[in-house]
Amino acid sequence: MGEFDLIKRFFTRATPLAVLGVGDDCALLQPSPGMQMAISSDMLVSGLHFFADVDPRALGHKALAVNLSDLAACGASPTAFTLALALPEADPAWLEPFSQGLLALADLHGCELIGGDTTKGPLNICITVFGEVPKGQALLRSGARAGDDIYVSGTLGDASLALAHMLQERNGKDGVQAGAQESSKARQPQFPAADLAQARQRLEWPTPRVALGMALRGVATAAADISDGLLGDLGHILDRSGTGATIDTALAFDLLGAHRYSAQTAAQLAVPELRNTVLQHVLSGGDDYELVFTAAPAQREAVQAAALASNTPVARIGQIDRAPGLRLLDPQGKLLDHHFNSFDHFAAPV
Amino acid sequence: MGEFDLIKRFFTRATPLAVLGVGDDCALLQPSPGMQMAISSDMLVSGLHFFADVDPRALGHKALAVNLSDLAACGASPTAFTLALALPEADPAWLEPFSQGLLALADLHGCELIGGDTTKGPLNICITVFGEVPKGQALLRSGARAGDDIYVSGTLGDASLALAHMLQERNGKDGVQAGAQESSKARQPQFPAADLAQARQRLEWPTPRVALGMALRGVATAAADISDGLLGDLGHILDRSGTGATIDTALAFDLLGAHRYSAQTAAQLAVPELRNTVLQHVLSGGDDYELVFTAAPAQREAVQAAALASNTPVARIGQIDRAPGLRLLDPQGKLLDHHFNSFDHFAAPV
Repeated sequence: MGEFDLIKRFFTRATPLAVLGVGDDCALLQPSPGMQMAISSDMLVSGLHFFADVDPRALGHKALAVNLSDLAACGASPTAFTLALALPEADPAWLEPFSQGLLALADLHGCELIGGDTTKGPLNICITVFGEVPKGQALLRSGARAGDDIYVSGTLGDASLALAHMLQERNGKDGVQAGAQESSKARQPQFPAADLAQARQRLEWPTPRVALGMALRGVATAAADISDGLLGDLGHILDRSGTGATIDTALAFDLLGAHRYSAQTAAQLAVPELRNTVLQHVLSGGDDYELVFTAAPAQREAVQAAALASNTPVARIGQIDRAPGLRLLDPQGKLLDHHFNSFDHFAAPV
Repeated sequence: MGEFDLIKRFFTRATPLAVLGVGDDCALLQPSPGMQMAISSDMLVSGLHFFADVDPRALGHKALAVNLSDLAACGASPTAFTLALALPEADPAWLEPFSQGLLALADLHGCELIGGDTTKGPLNICITVFGEVPKGQALLRSGARAGDDIYVSGTLGDASLALAHMLQERNGKDGVQAGAQESSKARQPQFPAADLAQARQRLEWPTPRVALGMALRGVATAAADISDGLLGDLGHILDRSGTGATIDTALAFDLLGAHRYSAQTAAQLAVPELRNTVLQHVLSGGDDYELVFTAAPAQREAVQAAALASNTPVARIGQIDRAPGLRLLDPQGKLLDHHFNSFDHFAAPV
């Protein structure tokens, strides 16, 4: 199957909103009056961001989800995306489910596939996504102010726990979580199959928090999506805002949502010796695609209203400080003396 | 060097035009009132679109040039781009010249690097470029009408000839031009070093015809850039316009611009036995990044004015027909019975 047949068969669709979609040298968008265009690109590489044998339907979903998550972090409403795809071969048995997973999520968000590129090469997926946000209302990383509360949406740590388990199974040895040198040496919690499947669902089918991001316009002072781990991504907010922060690790630990797992797993996750290992997954594990955001204490009701309106749980886990640096408090309110690594695709590939 | 240091060091620059550049979850653009946004993505893969040992400065230039060429084909004015880059390692000795070649061309076109992604992986460069064009004035592939003249900018065939030679040198055997099965079996013209260097310059440092594209707004009826070969890319115009075309191969042959080469090479290119081989490069060779466009005969003076204003030579080589299909005429005006292959990245990788 040639390149053009391939594009036509799986990726050419009606684009009622775009001025011009797939099939010309460029796509054309007509931005809405008064809106700014939010743009983000993410590249997913086989063996690094996903296992080569991952379900292609899940991969299609995730490839777009991680981009939509960037729009969510800015409070932008998705409008369109381009897909550039390098494939070892033009295999319809792979392309069909991949395109289905991709386009189902696109449809859910009214996000049109307007163009892109396909080529032979080592499997690589590069999506650039476009969204709109009213002028001046985008949520930026730079807006956090001392005294602001720090919130996280949904749950954290599942994706990282699932990845550690999958690597453990594949390697037949202790799980190695990408970028988490501490936890690679540490004993990992053991998951029964049903619990692992639940955690793995979060790794492979992340939910971009688009509705929450849009509901937080005018409420949050800063936001970022958690792709590389809470501490690292909060760190970007602190860097860009010129502030520090204090996190209550007891509240952060609760982000794991251990009650969602079986009693056996929940009990295990609460074992004191595993606490720092679990915290490592929660604080530094990547791939959850939740939002971390800040808001003034006067906005607590507004934050809860945004959470309700978007049907997305949010939890308050700390506050922004004038003093630079990131402080972690233990359950007794004392400074926690433990280093949690952040994720870096160059420092520690899968 | 970590991912974030890498981005900061080579790819973070002031973006005076964009609302927000590199460093947040999304970039923000404020589209100009009355303008539509033209968008194109191209992915370049090592070993397929370029040799792994190519000069990284040239590669940086070409990676953006091929995207700007898509904007040119739509008559759009470049504004910004995103860069997603997969690298086997974060090597400053490669990244510095790559970024210099990339950003020099960006600066030339006032096209700001506003965001992107970097990751470990087999070398892959995915750029998405943004441009603006007044509402309804974009040059599309679909606008060609029977009776229109067909024009090509600049020269054609150099890049393909250079590639055939380089492959010949590397393989130590007859040159194989990607996608050109005819010419791979045929004797190739031999180039002295200076002529090869000139042809290779066209392969490695293509000039996107941005100024010409903009000058053709309201003049051309349809346009496409020639990335995969004249016949293939003109074919897209014919498909989208529901028309056919007749090309005068004597005029097309002149697109090679043999006079630019040494007398020795020029004489060789004119040898009758090599004529179809040379025509294959001109008609089907990729990577020249010239424009093929159509315009009504009443616009001949306007086309020449656009060529002058943009300092870009253009040549008229045929006309659009009502009858579907692509007819090639020999110098005697008879139908040429010869098949020239088009380029397909899946059908015939380098």
